[in-house]
Parts: sequence; C-alpha cells; structure tokens
Amino acid sequence: MPDAPLDVVGVGNAIVDVIAQAEPALIERLALAKGAMTLIEADDAERLYGEMGAGIESSGGSAANTLAGIASLGGRGAYIGKVRDDQLGTAFSHDISAIGVDYRLRPATEGPPTARCLIFVTPDADRTMQTFLGVSILLGPDDIDPETIGDAQVTYLEGYLFDRDEAKEAFVKAAELAHAAGRKVALTLSDPFCVDRHRTSFLHLVQGHVDILFANHDEITSLYRTESFDEAVASVAGHVEIAAITRGAEGSVIVTGNDVIEIPAEPVAKVVDTTGAGDLYAAGVLYGITRGYELDVAGRIGSICAAEVISHYGARPETSLSALVKSRLG
Amino acid sequence: MPDAPLDVVGVGNAIVDVIAQAEPALIERLALAKGAMTLIEADDAERLYGEMGAGIESSGGSAANTLAGIASLGGRGAYIGKVRDDQLGTAFSHDISAIGVDYRLRPATEGPPTARCLIFVTPDADRTMQTFLGVSILLGPDDIDPETIGDAQVTYLEGYLFDRDEAKEAFVKAAELAHAAGRKVALTLSDPFCVDRHRTSFLHLVQGHVDILFANHDEITSLYRTESFDEAVASVAGHVEIAAITRGAEGSVIVTGNDVIEIPAEPVAKVVDTTGAGDLYAAGVLYGITRGYELDVAGRIGSICAAEVISHYGARPETSLSALVKSRLG
Repeated sequence: MPDAPLDVVGVGNAIVDVIAQAEPALIERLALAKGAMTLIEADDAERLYGEMGAGIESSGGSAANTLAGIASLGGRGAYIGKVRDDQLGTAFSHDISAIGVDYRLRPATEGPPTARCLIFVTPDADRTMQTFLGVSILLGPDDIDPETIGDAQVTYLEGYLFDRDEAKEAFVKAAELAHAAGRKVALTLSDPFCVDRHRTSFLHLVQGHVDILFANHDEITSLYRTESFDEAVASVAGHVEIAAITRGAEGSVIVTGNDVIEIPAEPVAKVVDTTGAGDLYAAGVLYGITRGYELDVAGRIGSICAAEVISHYGARPETSLSALVKSRLG
Repeated sequence: MPDAPLDVVGVGNAIVDVIAQAEPALIERLALAKGAMTLIEADDAERLYGEMGAGIESSGGSAANTLAGIASLGGRGAYIGKVRDDQLGTAFSHDISAIGVDYRLRPATEGPPTARCLIFVTPDADRTMQTFLGVSILLGPDDIDPETIGDAQVTYLEGYLFDRDEAKEAFVKAAELAHAAGRKVALTLSDPFCVDRHRTSFLHLVQGHVDILFANHDEITSLYRTESFDEAVASVAGHVEIAAITRGAEGSVIVTGNDVIEIPAEPVAKVVDTTGAGDLYAAGVLYGITRGYELDVAGRIGSICAAEVISHYGARPETSLSALVKSRLG
C-alpha cells in the first residue's frame, strides 16, 4: 500500500465494558442471547446491571479495541467515536489516548451518558453482551473528519454502527471519503444478529464499497443466507479484495481472488474470556496488510493477537503485542 | 468466638481503583514513592491520570477488598464506607453488594466525587498507589450503624482512615461500639508512611482498643521504631491478642501470647500485581478466626487468598476462594 501518515482509522461505537463472571443459569434465567450482542435501553441496562456479579470496567468498543491492538503492535492509528463528559467517557478518552491512538472528538456536553456494554463471561469463556449505546449513537456525518480519513491507509468500520441510522450515515460518509482519497475501506460484520437485522444494507455495502471484509463463520453464512461455509467463501471472493474469516478454535481463512489461505489458531494455555478475539484478530491482520506483510503472515499476526486477548478478562491487550509478535514469528 | 449474624464488618475508605501497567522510568520521572500509598488532591489526580497508561477500573479500598474476600470464602460480611452518586460510586456500590456483602450506606448527593486510587503496576508486580480520597473522607461517626457493628464478631478497621480526623472519629466510635457489644476489634496498619504520620495515635489505639492486628514487616517496625523484626514482634505480643504479620514472599507469622506461628507463603506461578495481597491475607485470617479454625490454619487460608489475588491484575478475587481453599487444604 502507498505510504500514509496513519495506518488505520477506526470508526465505531465508543463503549466502556463492564465485565463480570456469570454462571450459565444466570444467562438462562435472564433469557439473554448467549454469545451474542443485544442492544438494550437505559432501564434494561440498570435492571441487568443489578443482576450482574461484581465487575471490572475497561474501555471497549469493537473498532476501538482493534485500534488499541494496532497501537500495541507499533502501528499508527486514529479513532472516531462519541462519548459524554462523564466518568466513563473520561476513562474511555484517557485509555485510547494513553495507548497512542489519535482521538480528537470532544465529548458531548449533553444527551445520554457514555455507552456501556454489560459482558457476562461464562466458565466456557463465552461472552454474552448487553449494550446500552447511550451517546455513542449520536455520532453523525459531521463527526467524520475528512483529513483523518484521508491520512489513513485503511478506514475500518464496525457493522455495529448500522444499528442506528445517524451512525450509518457517518459510516457511509467515511467510506466515500476514504475512496475519494485513494484509500481502502475495511468492514467487520460484528455479529450474526446485526447482519440479520441489516442484511440488504450490508450486502449492498460489501459489494459496492468494501475492500477488506472481516467476519466469523456465523456472520458470513448469515450474510449470504447459506448453511455452507464454502459457498459463503465463494460468494465473498467475488465481492471484496480480501476477506478474513475467523473460525474460533479452528483458526481462520483469508480469501483473495481464487486463493483461500488457511491460518492456524495460536495455542492458548487457558481461554478465559473470548471478548475482543475478533477485534484483535482484525488488528493483527490490518497491521500486517498496511505494513506490507504477505497475507499468510498478516493472518498469523492476527492469530497471535487474538490468542493474547482471550487469555485474560477484557477486550484489550495486557502485554506489548509488538514484542509478543516478534518473539512468536522469530 | 460466640455466634453472631455477621462474621466481619469492615470500615474503610470506599475507593475505585484505576490500574495501569507502568515502566519504572515513569515512577521515577513522576517522583512517586514506589510501593507506597500517597494521598493526592483532585488536581494532582487529574495530572497523574494524564500521565498514566490505559487503565482498568475495579472496586477497591483496603477493608472493602478484605470483605470481598470474606464473601468469596463464604463468610457473612458488611461494609461501611462512603461514595458519591456518580458513575464510579454506582460501580463501587454495585460490586460490593453483588458479591453478597451487606452495604447500606446511601451515596452522598453532594460534595466531592467518589474516591479513586491510581495504581501504577511495575513489571516487578509492585504497586505504587496515588489516592484521591474524594467523598470517602466525609465518613463520620453518624455513618457508623451500631446495629451492624453489634451484629459482627469482628469489626475490621483500616489504618488509612487515620489520615482524616472526621474518619478517625468514626473509627473510634466503631471500636467502642464493638467492645460494648462484646465483640472483637481488628485493625490493619495499612502502610508504613501512614503509621509514620500517626504513630502516637496508632500506638494508643493498639494498646487500648485492638484485639487483632494486621501489619507487614515495614509497618510493624515503623510502629515500634525498631530495625528488628523480632523486637517488634516481642512488643506487639504484649499489646494485642493476635498479631498477624506478613513478610511478602517469606510468608507470615501469627503472634499470640508467647507463641509465634510461622505460616509459609503459598506458591504462585507468576506474580502479576501485588495490589490487595495484604487485604486478602486479612480476609483469610479473619474468616479462619471467626469460623473457629486454629490459627495456623487461619494463616494458611490467608496465604491461599493472597496468592490468588497477586496472580492477576486487581485487588479482588477472580475465582471462588471457598472452592480454592477447599481444594488446597484438602
């Protein structure tokens, strides 16, 4: 890719995660969609928080986690997403800036509070997410800074933004600005239910505007309404330059033209919390691509980053990914 | 001990921890007292937060951590400490209630925000704490509920409360109520600098009002102004019924009358963050004492609890201490 001041700019819902351990019986009693992301309103957020165990608060947000990973790898990134001027918003802004991601959007001084995601982590390391989007959905086209988008080799968008029209407009604007500047657009489908809610819009976008697509098995088969992974792979190959598709413990495949590159998963001593696995995989792949690595190496970097984040609670790396990748790739 | 509705009630500064990894060079550049707890004002809290890396927020507070440990062991506890009606205060209240500790004090609706402790964790797993006490210091004698104190076998007080006169009054009231109800009073010295700041008050309290004393090597030698650990042990034996003194990786000793019981440290695969080590040791010992275990077993339970909390970031257990202790004691 041509050189640019930034490797990646991420656009997404700026969210603080509240992470707590939970027994499967609790997920059942509360009738939560296990393993998925469900949008909730303020009153449900309060009710479910009351049912939750003791938590830790940690900055999250899918695209923001990815940018945190890119920064930890030594990449240059920026982030666009909206918080309020409250304690959680202050923590979000602090954390993303502290790791070296360029974050300029000022906190909103009115409107709903900073978004939060209640994450119930079960003993199988699966995470069930209940998201109150708060002020993050007020991200609109005016918040997309053309200069930042033009400066980045890749503009990375999270599918979750599709859940509100205002944010979708911001999303499309960012994609158009990126292409106008001769840059690439990457998208993650985020969640099979999110794909289900917005399938037509996603298909249109993937075919017309996306160069690099991230998805997992459930999301890609939901997008193409097929049971067959191979059929979905065949379809996506005609729609985007690069598709990186994760398969949990079985690793991932990177599809480009007629090539399907198999990437093994990185071994993990104990999987504690799978929150952020996809986000950190995307971080590694995007870092690899923008830094000119072959796709199989970029995929391997993605696997290494994902393995780090699932070995502890929380969706952001707890160690220098740059050093970790260096030691693993040799 | 005689039976009671509660095992332990803790009185302390209600604090939310902000935990971040830090290089030793940062501690040096900021001229922080490495390994100690330093009190800071609001503007310093803001300045130091700006210098800190990305953090996770987690409920803390020395006595509150101890009560969290006792609850995780299956003990019955209550907590008294003050927060504001802000996002951090909401998290603190939620967390301590969610783990089953009785917490009734309503958040203050005015005054400074909820207390926070900026914790810089260096690669040697040492923690350097900078505490902005916020509204927690407004804990006063009126907040001490006589019924709760009377219901608990042990009233556990943290030395940190001595840093403000209003809180010290609450402290003395709690001790007097406990003894009036025929209960025991336990105290942790909290920090060698805290002991240094209030040596006379502490000595007076230890000699006149404390039944069970917790301290580490530096705190007990500071209290008795001696270089010699053995001299400090000899002095404390005459002043309290039971003294439990931690020695880091060397384990601890429990002193009672003429007996000095050596307690080995529990092996830990990797020490990540020593925050909460003393608090969780106290949890295990107090649980053991109130549940009628011999002192050597109580000490061993303390070691097991401390080992769990230093194996991850954060000052509260991430696993069921009850199950852990059962598996270790056999």
